[in-house]
Amino acid sequence: MTHAAAHVAAVTAAPALEPPTGAALHTRVEALAQALAATAVERDRAGGHAAAERELIKASGLLALSIEREWGGWGADAPTWLRVVRRLAEVDSALAHVFAFHHLQLATVRLYGTAEQQRRLIAGTLDSGAFWGNALNPLDRRTRATRTADGWRLDGVKSYCSGSVGSDWLSVSAWHEDSGSLLIGVLPTRTAGLTVQADWEAFGQRQTDSGTVRFDGVRLPDADVLVAPGSTPSVRGTLRPLLAQSVLTQLYLGLARGAFDAGRRFVVEQAQPWFSAGVARAADDPLVQHRWGAWSVGLRAAELLAEDAAAQLQQALDAGPAVTAAQRGQAAVATAQAKAAAHRIGLEIASNLFETTGARATSERLGLDRYWRNLRVHTLHDPLDQKLRDLGRHALDGRLPEPSPYS
Amino acid sequence: MTHAAAHVAAVTAAPALEPPTGAALHTRVEALAQALAATAVERDRAGGHAAAERELIKASGLLALSIEREWGGWGADAPTWLRVVRRLAEVDSALAHVFAFHHLQLATVRLYGTAEQQRRLIAGTLDSGAFWGNALNPLDRRTRATRTADGWRLDGVKSYCSGSVGSDWLSVSAWHEDSGSLLIGVLPTRTAGLTVQADWEAFGQRQTDSGTVRFDGVRLPDADVLVAPGSTPSVRGTLRPLLAQSVLTQLYLGLARGAFDAGRRFVVEQAQPWFSAGVARAADDPLVQHRWGAWSVGLRAAELLAEDAAAQLQQALDAGPAVTAAQRGQAAVATAQAKAAAHRIGLEIASNLFETTGARATSERLGLDRYWRNLRVHTLHDPLDQKLRDLGRHALDGRLPEPSPYS
Amino acid sequence: MTHAAAHVAAVTAAPALEPPTGAALHTRVEALAQALAATAVERDRAGGHAAAERELIKASGLLALSIEREWGGWGADAPTWLRVVRRLAEVDSALAHVFAFHHLQLATVRLYGTAEQQRRLIAGTLDSGAFWGNALNPLDRRTRATRTADGWRLDGVKSYCSGSVGSDWLSVSAWHEDSGSLLIGVLPTRTAGLTVQADWEAFGQRQTDSGTVRFDGVRLPDADVLVAPGSTPSVRGTLRPLLAQSVLTQLYLGLARGAFDAGRRFVVEQAQPWFSAGVARAADDPLVQHRWGAWSVGLRAAELLAEDAAAQLQQALDAGPAVTAAQRGQAAVATAQAKAAAHRIGLEIASNLFETTGARATSERLGLDRYWRNLRVHTLHDPLDQKLRDLGRHALDGRLPEPSPYS
Amino acid sequence: MTHAAAHVAAVTAAPALEPPTGAALHTRVEALAQALAATAVERDRAGGHAAAERELIKASGLLALSIEREWGGWGADAPTWLRVVRRLAEVDSALAHVFAFHHLQLATVRLYGTAEQQRRLIAGTLDSGAFWGNALNPLDRRTRATRTADGWRLDGVKSYCSGSVGSDWLSVSAWHEDSGSLLIGVLPTRTAGLTVQADWEAFGQRQTDSGTVRFDGVRLPDADVLVAPGSTPSVRGTLRPLLAQSVLTQLYLGLARGAFDAGRRFVVEQAQPWFSAGVARAADDPLVQHRWGAWSVGLRAAELLAEDAAAQLQQALDAGPAVTAAQRGQAAVATAQAKAAAHRIGLEIASNLFETTGARATSERLGLDRYWRNLRVHTLHDPLDQKLRDLGRHALDGRLPEPSPYS
Repeated sequence: MTHAAAHVAAVTAAPALEPPTGAALHTRVEALAQALAATAVERDRAGGHAAAERELIKASGLLALSIEREWGGWGADAPTWLRVVRRLAEVDSALAHVFAFHHLQLATVRLYGTAEQQRRLIAGTLDSGAFWGNALNPLDRRTRATRTADGWRLDGVKSYCSGSVGSDWLSVSAWHEDSGSLLIGVLPTRTAGLTVQADWEAFGQRQTDSGTVRFDGVRLPDADVLVAPGSTPSVRGTLRPLLAQSVLTQLYLGLARGAFDAGRRFVVEQAQPWFSAGVARAADDPLVQHRWGAWSVGLRAAELLAEDAAAQLQQALDAGPAVTAAQRGQAAVATAQAKAAAHRIGLEIASNLFETTGARATSERLGLDRYWRNLRVHTLHDPLDQKLRDLGRHALDGRLPEPSPYS
Repeated sequence: MTHAAAHVAAVTAAPALEPPTGAALHTRVEALAQALAATAVERDRAGGHAAAERELIKASGLLALSIEREWGGWGADAPTWLRVVRRLAEVDSALAHVFAFHHLQLATVRLYGTAEQQRRLIAGTLDSGAFWGNALNPLDRRTRATRTADGWRLDGVKSYCSGSVGSDWLSVSAWHEDSGSLLIGVLPTRTAGLTVQADWEAFGQRQTDSGTVRFDGVRLPDADVLVAPGSTPSVRGTLRPLLAQSVLTQLYLGLARGAFDAGRRFVVEQAQPWFSAGVARAADDPLVQHRWGAWSVGLRAAELLAEDAAAQLQQALDAGPAVTAAQRGQAAVATAQAKAAAHRIGLEIASNLFETTGARATSERLGLDRYWRNLRVHTLHDPLDQKLRDLGRHALDGRLPEPSPYS
Repeated sequence: MTHAAAHVAAVTAAPALEPPTGAALHTRVEALAQALAATAVERDRAGGHAAAERELIKASGLLALSIEREWGGWGADAPTWLRVVRRLAEVDSALAHVFAFHHLQLATVRLYGTAEQQRRLIAGTLDSGAFWGNALNPLDRRTRATRTADGWRLDGVKSYCSGSVGSDWLSVSAWHEDSGSLLIGVLPTRTAGLTVQADWEAFGQRQTDSGTVRFDGVRLPDADVLVAPGSTPSVRGTLRPLLAQSVLTQLYLGLARGAFDAGRRFVVEQAQPWFSAGVARAADDPLVQHRWGAWSVGLRAAELLAEDAAAQLQQALDAGPAVTAAQRGQAAVATAQAKAAAHRIGLEIASNLFETTGARATSERLGLDRYWRNLRVHTLHDPLDQKLRDLGRHALDGRLPEPSPYS
Repeated sequence: MTHAAAHVAAVTAAPALEPPTGAALHTRVEALAQALAATAVERDRAGGHAAAERELIKASGLLALSIEREWGGWGADAPTWLRVVRRLAEVDSALAHVFAFHHLQLATVRLYGTAEQQRRLIAGTLDSGAFWGNALNPLDRRTRATRTADGWRLDGVKSYCSGSVGSDWLSVSAWHEDSGSLLIGVLPTRTAGLTVQADWEAFGQRQTDSGTVRFDGVRLPDADVLVAPGSTPSVRGTLRPLLAQSVLTQLYLGLARGAFDAGRRFVVEQAQPWFSAGVARAADDPLVQHRWGAWSVGLRAAELLAEDAAAQLQQALDAGPAVTAAQRGQAAVATAQAKAAAHRIGLEIASNLFETTGARATSERLGLDRYWRNLRVHTLHDPLDQKLRDLGRHALDGRLPEPSPYS
């Protein structure tokens, strides 16, 4: 265990009679955030698999955050664990993504699985200390499912599998040609025939452990199938993409806030006033202040939209199987609005904070470009303009977003 | 009583054992909104004093909305009466302004006045059915206060006095040269020596009854002075400008929502698709949908900021004399953010909705230009860029907005 | 003749051995511009037919501006007469439109007509002092053409006919059902069966004399047909819409420059600095200066795009029948780019100049809202977003704009 | 000599009876551009000194581009060599910067030097095949000049010296405390006591050879002083900063055009249409087309502004010592407008092209992020907002930009 992991573990070590909430949760999250922050700039440049930092996350206990209390977890609802994602993304949006995808896969089991599967897999996660990743990319149909006597056989490849490198369990999807639909299941990453290739090479979000997963005659028993091909999707099941979209929103917001804080600090502590501006400090320049004022409005607005969307989503989750398409649709609108706003203000701040810092802020050592790079890469998960179009349909015709893997 | 006033009165007429809240309040507000909407386009073009519509407002009972329950009022808190302002502004932002300024002057008495003054003036408003206006413009120091034996003598003029034409009571301010400070008091509009000139002639917000008030040796007894010259302002007193700013925010939001709804309806019901767009309806054009989607995000964001700001302001009001400068300052930041956001999205929608409607939407009969004209005039109360600068100071240095008549 | 017309005529009166160009042309244009400016605000509010101002234009001699020198005209090329349109639009965009449409119809005769028609109609315009308008709206197919022995019979109505009210000659179009194509011809406005109804009622461009033209069995002899139904359009003929689009661009630019100059003057001469800005004059406020700096860039850019487009268009016109589709296409791209840029910067300045002026600039007497109203109405001739889409197709695939009445 | 350099040299080798212009110049520039492009992505990632590519530039003969014909150079005027800078920046903005700074230093000699200095240094550049860099940064006053018997002694350091690493000659500035002014001179880079430290470490423009130059008792003879401390600057001398600003403009435009072309190609050749967009190709999506259309307008506008500014600047240069402050001022306004426009559209395209490409365009191998990184770093030379403020002063008050090292 590294020194940092030891520190995080120490914060976590006190025998928890009660799962940490409120201030206690805050303390643990801050300890993890500080530990990640210490090396974030350097790791962002280097890319690759952040094995030590994954250990930090495990040591923090936060992998139990969204797990049900009755099974020994911390029982946080979606708005709570999404806020932790946001906080971690302020300092390290790649690891925050890995962390978020762990909880997203647990939610996947919760939303799609039977009571038995939920108990076995979610409670089992706690017992085994497992870290979840995914191999679900619904747009990549190259992995095919073939029926066997007692389950399915998976063959093919799946790209853009966030969190797969270094994971213990994976949620997976495979295309079933006969029914023209997807199968969704779960598999231990160390299953025979399953290999993960660490081939992510984008210019941002470099440590998201997004690999390519290859299936060579992988056996998936029926017991681990969450959604069989041809199943009629329930409204409740369609909350999963809203949770996935919410994760993205929180990551954008964390990056936006991270850029805001880092930029603000640079302006206040290091930026030089321009010689003709007639002020003693860059932070006293009305033109500089004006930019930061506008950004503060945009950022706060996006945060409120995200909080509102998360609350609506939680209500829909709380409704259980009784959730209606209308309730789901309203939450989908709120989720899309929050994501669009976070996308825009994040890029705006991350790209333009430099207008107020001067050239010195572009030193590689500071790594202030990483907010733009990380946002730029991560905001391309699904296209902004299509989301705005969906929202326009709703605004004009009252049409709720079509449930899809991205809405 | 006009037919419309009779209808509004009928809705209001049921003997109210309880002050209307929730659905009952909603019904009354809607009845008033419908009545105002029926003639709003025409009155907007004509300008002038809307005597009949002031009667509609009186008949609705809503002048009692913010008055304390113990004195027979409806007891609505600030977020509630501000929401009513917003709703009315969707259909008639000039009358909504007049309505809001009535409640703002009541709040002025509440924040500055003694217990005796509050009871006498606020409870008295209910008994007399008075409509309040103002003659407070703090940037116009041409009205001077001179000490007399038992009070003050006011001489001079005061410009931009919203709601003064046709009012029963006025809150007034006058400059006291010796102390270099303002006196604030209240006066019946029909006081000897006080005349109101209806000289408002802007291209928008034409029926705000914003006149010029002239004081010729007007006598203001000490009993009606709310703030004597040279008084040290309390933190609580500095909540008044936040309420005034919140009124503006709600008017902008009402106009923005009004423009959004009217534009949306036109696109759906009347706009023609462009011949080369390859769609059957204008509302099916992706480029049209994209614009509306983006506007829906901006409008919803501004609404959430306004709700958040109103809640913070109400908490500060609830704190009574114990309210701290820090609490006030946080509410001031939220208030400024909401106002800036409402300003921007309002003008954006009001000006650009036409990009999606085609030329036919510019007919004078439809009056769709009034949203831009009303917003454009009303958003100049205090400059957006200075507000963003203030917010930037806060963002950079943590400096809370300096209390002033505009922040 | 009014006093103003007399003044304009006096400037024009000197026996012109040579058609005025350069400084001489400038003097005449300025005299007309000043005369129109004197009453522009008032007439803009009132709307209706500007008979006296049409006389001013006639008296200025500028109806001959684009007419060939060989026939006694002033022989200005397109960039030159378009610049005059722009200058007039700075002070009166409605009359500038009427003026521009006169020259656009002359160009229509030049591009579509036979040598005989050109000489007869264009030279005839000079002799008779005729003012041209149009009844061409290609999207309104309610006017039908029926073949007769020696020509055509026209029946039906045509909307949005700019310059028709008070015109002497009209270019007209009618739908020919059998061939599924338009006929284009010219008619004296006082033709039997042709009536012009002054029913334009938009909130801007109020004096463009845009009426509805009704045809009741109107006889159009073959000699006055410019384009017979079913004719194959020549590349040269497709330059006409580019000229029409260029007229709009110049009107937008004139309005933009007019708004810029009027706003600038107000800021410098009348605007008050904000109390907390710490400057002596509004024009010294860095936030005010920043806005004007940005606008100056956008306006200058649009002007250069328009000059560039006009030069390309003139080259295409100069090529005569030899003009190629590629040359036409390049000119079409430049024309569309200029129009889009003028549209955007015009609205930006016209709407936002008020952010720097304060509330006093909204007085009806100043009429500073007319720039927005006029731009807003006039920019809806064809949709900006579709134009940007066309330009995007060209940017991506190199596809030249499809010739149409709007591109 | 590398293979690439050999190719470039071969293109250049034909015995030039005439300096290459027009098509011949174009051929040489394209050969160099192709050679730089081949390794640009890789070198951009790696950073460091591009010795081989500097040899390519030398082999191209283009170091003679701006050198007077009478001395054997190619005699290109400023608009011409600036266009070459722009073209090279499309593929490699760092080397284009190094190339541009060579010609900028030659211009410095031309504008500040005596006839003897011009002949000796400029003609000498051609003879020796020298590559110029600079150590002029006027905001860094740490290098001090002390008077000696026959010249000056320089001591101290100078930061941000573009093109200094690997240069043969440097223009240098040093602060003279007694007169409170700068000395400007030239020095061979291999002068005793002068060392160049390659310490540039920004996240963009990584190969601009921007080092820190250290002076330890460096001797500068009077003969190599271009501007002695305390000299009154001539108007002609103040054209130098306009040329420096124009170089930046061209680099931004080259980057913008490079991003535009690379992005466009990706969209057309590789981008996938979104599943719900209902189109066969991403390039057929109206929302994608709309973005590219808007960018084409902004880019073309900035290019026209730059051409216009370069033409005005050349006129001012052609005026020689007779150039007036007014002429200089107009050129300064045009230069500032062009730079601001190029700054904005460059960042807009470089950051947002990804909205239309999808996630695959973020692969490190493609290097499409380099446009944003290079622009982001390079646009911080002097602050955009201050430039817009200067332009606003001119727009409002007609005040011409104050000559300074940045305007």
